[in-house]
Amino acid sequence: MDKLILVKIGGNIIDDEAKFSSFLQDFATIQAKKILIHGGGKLATRLAEQMKIPQQLVDGRRITDAETLKIVTMVYAGYINKNIVAQLQAKQCNAIGLTGADGNAILARKRVHPTMDYGFVGDVDSIDSSLLRNLLQQGLTPVLSPITHDRKGQLLNTNADTIAQETAKALSAFYDVELIYSFEKNGVLLDVNNEQSVIKKINASYYSELKTEGKIYAGMIPKLDNAFTALNNGVKKVIIGRAEEIHELIRGEKGTSISHE
Amino acid sequence: MDKLILVKIGGNIIDDEAKFSSFLQDFATIQAKKILIHGGGKLATRLAEQMKIPQQLVDGRRITDAETLKIVTMVYAGYINKNIVAQLQAKQCNAIGLTGADGNAILARKRVHPTMDYGFVGDVDSIDSSLLRNLLQQGLTPVLSPITHDRKGQLLNTNADTIAQETAKALSAFYDVELIYSFEKNGVLLDVNNEQSVIKKINASYYSELKTEGKIYAGMIPKLDNAFTALNNGVKKVIIGRAEEIHELIRGEKGTSISHE
Repeated sequence: MDKLILVKIGGNIIDDEAKFSSFLQDFATIQAKKILIHGGGKLATRLAEQMKIPQQLVDGRRITDAETLKIVTMVYAGYINKNIVAQLQAKQCNAIGLTGADGNAILARKRVHPTMDYGFVGDVDSIDSSLLRNLLQQGLTPVLSPITHDRKGQLLNTNADTIAQETAKALSAFYDVELIYSFEKNGVLLDVNNEQSVIKKINASYYSELKTEGKIYAGMIPKLDNAFTALNNGVKKVIIGRAEEIHELIRGEKGTSISHE
Repeated sequence: MDKLILVKIGGNIIDDEAKFSSFLQDFATIQAKKILIHGGGKLATRLAEQMKIPQQLVDGRRITDAETLKIVTMVYAGYINKNIVAQLQAKQCNAIGLTGADGNAILARKRVHPTMDYGFVGDVDSIDSSLLRNLLQQGLTPVLSPITHDRKGQLLNTNADTIAQETAKALSAFYDVELIYSFEKNGVLLDVNNEQSVIKKINASYYSELKTEGKIYAGMIPKLDNAFTALNNGVKKVIIGRAEEIHELIRGEKGTSISHE
């Protein structure tokens, strides 16, 4: 099977123009088939302020009311997604920007919660990988924004980490998938305050050892649990590290590599 | 060759939610291969007001400065395009929304004018129809927003009529293309004040006769000249009429049909 590299980038790098352009240059030169999944960034919050639309937060989570959905659709699927595509095209990477509504690629349902209404937030129901596979076969590089739909005409704001994970799982039947989660640290750290304490490799038995000994920073546990879920669903490898070091992450020279090996 | 129907819709119908939803239902049921090209609408202007970004008009044309480009990218490529896609998906039409940057489908260059700067406005240089053809072959329906790129990383605001015409011409080597321009009248009228005076058919000799006799409303002449340019470049038929009557336009029961016959 061909190798396929999925890279998920967060908001912090998107907000830093120089760093982001340099990342896109590196991404464009990845030789394997590849998919980029992006989150939001501060632009949506700034636009909401400019439009005087109050942002409602409950337990630190943004509630996606109708006006906020409009903003995230404009910013994520429009401004950010199309600027990434145009920049990748300039770097000779034949990118195509998509939401989950396009080609019915990612079907979601509005989140139902017993006590609170998150608004237009979608949880992923299923991935139809046929469009993505066809585009990859043509040499195109899909760029996914974190907007999905319910196939009843409703767009939904969806967590980009979840989109990355579900897409990686769905495509692992057709490719040897490596999933790269980029974040603001060198990798999974033994000591959260020491960027030099990166754990190079984690497999399932070492992970339970680390957890038992309380050596994993609590904030990393959900990320690592998700990584193992991906591995248990066919993904070959999950890599966690800095977007600025994408080629080193792929070569295994930087970051934390999580696999069954 | 398979038949391909390109439908270009303008802002007025997009701004009318009930009419637009009904149009999309009609469009979804067109049996032939099809492409939808949409323009803007009042939402971009309203958003600019809300964001307090002054809109500069020169000779009635909006100047696309950097902030305005951001707005039209958000509104056209994001909000409008993705809502059309989600609505078509709900109506069992497997739509995929694109700009000219996606798959490098429409390459443009920033307009150069001897005396004035239109800003980030693009004139179409070339169409790469390979992505569109591949998507059509898979049964997908492309939805094009009027944003292109220069392949140097710059997005450009581009006239939707031009995109429709250039795309129709490029695809006419592969399909029997019919191009439908929808507007606010029943068709080309002999008497601009009488909606019943629709000219059913126009060919080149009848057109020069009408022009010589001064029977064509001046505002229609550029549209008709464009239609004949399309015909002279391989397009089989251009139809002008109301979006609300899309099936009647296709069947030749309403509107004005322009062809070499």
